[in-house]
Amino acid sequence: MEDTTVLLGHGSGGTMMRRIIDNVFMQAYGTDELHQGNDAADLVIPQDGSRLAYSTDSFVVTPHFFPGGDIGHLAICGTVNDVATSGARPAYLSCGFILEEGFPMTDLKRICASMAKTAQEAGVHIATGDTKVVNRGHGDGIYINTSGIGFIPKDRHLGGQLCKPGDKILVTGTLGDHGITIMSCREQLSFHANIRSDAAPLNGLIEDVLQAAPGTRCFRDPTRGGLASTLNELSEQAGVNMSVQEELIPVKPEVRGACEMLGYDVLQVANEGKMVSVVPADQADAALRAMKNNTYGKDAAIIGEVEEKEAQRDSRVTVRTAIGSTRILDMLVGEQLPRIC
Amino acid sequence: MEDTTVLLGHGSGGTMMRRIIDNVFMQAYGTDELHQGNDAADLVIPQDGSRLAYSTDSFVVTPHFFPGGDIGHLAICGTVNDVATSGARPAYLSCGFILEEGFPMTDLKRICASMAKTAQEAGVHIATGDTKVVNRGHGDGIYINTSGIGFIPKDRHLGGQLCKPGDKILVTGTLGDHGITIMSCREQLSFHANIRSDAAPLNGLIEDVLQAAPGTRCFRDPTRGGLASTLNELSEQAGVNMSVQEELIPVKPEVRGACEMLGYDVLQVANEGKMVSVVPADQADAALRAMKNNTYGKDAAIIGEVEEKEAQRDSRVTVRTAIGSTRILDMLVGEQLPRIC
Repeated sequence: MEDTTVLLGHGSGGTMMRRIIDNVFMQAYGTDELHQGNDAADLVIPQDGSRLAYSTDSFVVTPHFFPGGDIGHLAICGTVNDVATSGARPAYLSCGFILEEGFPMTDLKRICASMAKTAQEAGVHIATGDTKVVNRGHGDGIYINTSGIGFIPKDRHLGGQLCKPGDKILVTGTLGDHGITIMSCREQLSFHANIRSDAAPLNGLIEDVLQAAPGTRCFRDPTRGGLASTLNELSEQAGVNMSVQEELIPVKPEVRGACEMLGYDVLQVANEGKMVSVVPADQADAALRAMKNNTYGKDAAIIGEVEEKEAQRDSRVTVRTAIGSTRILDMLVGEQLPRIC
Repeated sequence: MEDTTVLLGHGSGGTMMRRIIDNVFMQAYGTDELHQGNDAADLVIPQDGSRLAYSTDSFVVTPHFFPGGDIGHLAICGTVNDVATSGARPAYLSCGFILEEGFPMTDLKRICASMAKTAQEAGVHIATGDTKVVNRGHGDGIYINTSGIGFIPKDRHLGGQLCKPGDKILVTGTLGDHGITIMSCREQLSFHANIRSDAAPLNGLIEDVLQAAPGTRCFRDPTRGGLASTLNELSEQAGVNMSVQEELIPVKPEVRGACEMLGYDVLQVANEGKMVSVVPADQADAALRAMKNNTYGKDAAIIGEVEEKEAQRDSRVTVRTAIGSTRILDMLVGEQLPRIC
C-alpha cells in the first residue's frame, strides 16, 4: 500500500508508523544501526571498542502542562528511558527547541525548570542545545527534541532479539496512565481528577533490575502504541510468540473505566513511565523484587511469557483471559490519540 | 530587558538569541558543558577518558528545496559541521522528524534521499531516529532535528577560548551565499539564477587543515548571524579584539549586489558551507593552502587577525576598509531573515 501524503497515523507507534519507517526512511538510509530495532542504538566507540547508546525523540504533546508532568519533563524522561533500555547509564542530552512566535516566556521558563529538575533526578547533563523560532501559525507553541548518549558497561548486551521461549514478561507498573491523562485533559472529561501521567526517569530502576537479574534480555519503553505495539515488535524481532494473562496486567480502575467508556484497548494506550522487560524464568522473581523496591516499580508484575513460534507462521502475541479464552493482541493500526508525547 | 513572549529575533543567532539563552536556558540548566560556548560540546567518556563531540540543530528552513540544496541536505551538513568544529571525526547522527499531516510523501522521499547522499559523502551513519506527525496547521510541512556524535583524537583541543593576539582569522570561502539564496527564492527576486546555497559537509576540509596546521585554535560555523556574530562570540569567549580587512573578505559580486539592493550587511548573512578559523600566524599559510586544495575551500582567504583587548573594555570586532576607515562590526540585533536554516 502506497501512502501519498503524511497522515496522523504515521506518528502512531502502530502499523502505519512501521510502514513509513520501512518504505521511506529505511529505503533511503537503512543503516545497520537503525536495523537493530531497539529503543536506542548500541554503538561502538572506535578508539577502544567500548560502547555507547544513542537515542532521539521529539515531543509535540498537547496540552503542554498536564497532571503529573509537562512537555519538558516528558522530553527528559523519554530520552533517558530510551537510552537506559540498552543497559547504558545515560550521561548527556541534547535539546533542540522549535518555538512559535508569541509563546509566553513564563511557560518556557516553567518548562525549562521542569527539564532541569528531571535531568538532575536522572543524573544527566544537558550538554548541547539549539533554538529555532517559527512564525505564528507554523507551530504549536513549543516542540522539543532531545537526544541522549549513555555509556554501556562492558559485559552488558541487551536487545529484543535475545528473547527466548520460556522467558517471563514483566511490566514495571500500571498501564495506560499517561495516555488517558492526556486524553482527559484534552476532552475535559470528568474522570481526570484521579489520573496522573506516569512520566518518570527509569534509569535507576533499570540499573536495579540489572544488578538483581543480570541475565535480563531487554527493556522496552511502551509509549505510542502501548504494550500491544511493544510486544508485537519484540516477538517479531526475536522470532517468537508471546502470551500475556489479562488479569495479571496492572491497570488502575479509573484508567480501565475511562478506556471502557471511550472504547480504547488499554493495551494500546501510551505510557511514559513504565518499562516492559523480558527476563529468563530463573531470574524473573529477582527482577520483580528489584522493581517493587524502586519508587517507580511498586505495581510491577509478571504478566506472561515468551513461547515457541510455529514454523512457517508469523510471530504472534496472544492475551489469555480469566475465563480461559484467548485473543490475538494486534498492533495499533491507525491513530488512536495523536500528539500523546 | 525582559521579553514576555518568544519573538522571531530569539532565533536569529544575534543578541536576542543570546538573551534567551542566558536568561532562560542557562538560568534553568547552565551545565559546564553548555558554558563551553563552542559549536559542539567536548565531552569525556568515563570508561577511558577519551573524548567525544556532541551537537544538535533543528531545521525549519522554508522553502524546503532551493538552489544548491534542501532541508535534508542542510540537516546533515549543519550537524556534521558543528561536530567537526571540535576537531572530532563525526560518526553517528540522530534524526527526528516533525511532519505535518498532508505533507507530500514524494517530497519526504526526496528529502530522505538527499540526507542519505550527504551522510554518505560525510562518512556518517544515521543511527537512530524518531517521527512525529502534527495535525494540519500546526507545522510547516517538515521540521528536522539532527544531533551528531564525533570522536575527538587524543591530542586535539580546539575552542574559541584559545584564540590569542597575533593569530590570523581565515574563512574557507565566499560569504552570504546561503542566506541570499533563501531570500531570493522566497521573494522570487530576479538575481537568484546565479546564486546557490553553499551548504556542504566540511569535516574533510577541517581534517585537512588540522593535518597541515595542527596548532589551529578553533573552527566556527558562521550560520545565523553570519561572520559578525561568529567573530563577536569568539572575541568575547577569548577576551580579545578581532579586526578584519573588508577587501580581503571573499564575497561573490551577485551576493554583494543583492545585499546592497536589500540593505543587508553581508557579514551578518547566514552561511551553511563555510568555516571561520583562527590559526597561529606561523601556521596560517599552511592552513590556507590546505583549504584551497579542498573542493569546498577554493575561495579561502586570510581576512584579519586577533588583537589585544584594552584593559577594562569589552571585546570588540572592527572592520578596516580599503580607504583606511574603521567601523565596529556588531552582532545582529533583531531578526534579518527568519527560518534560514
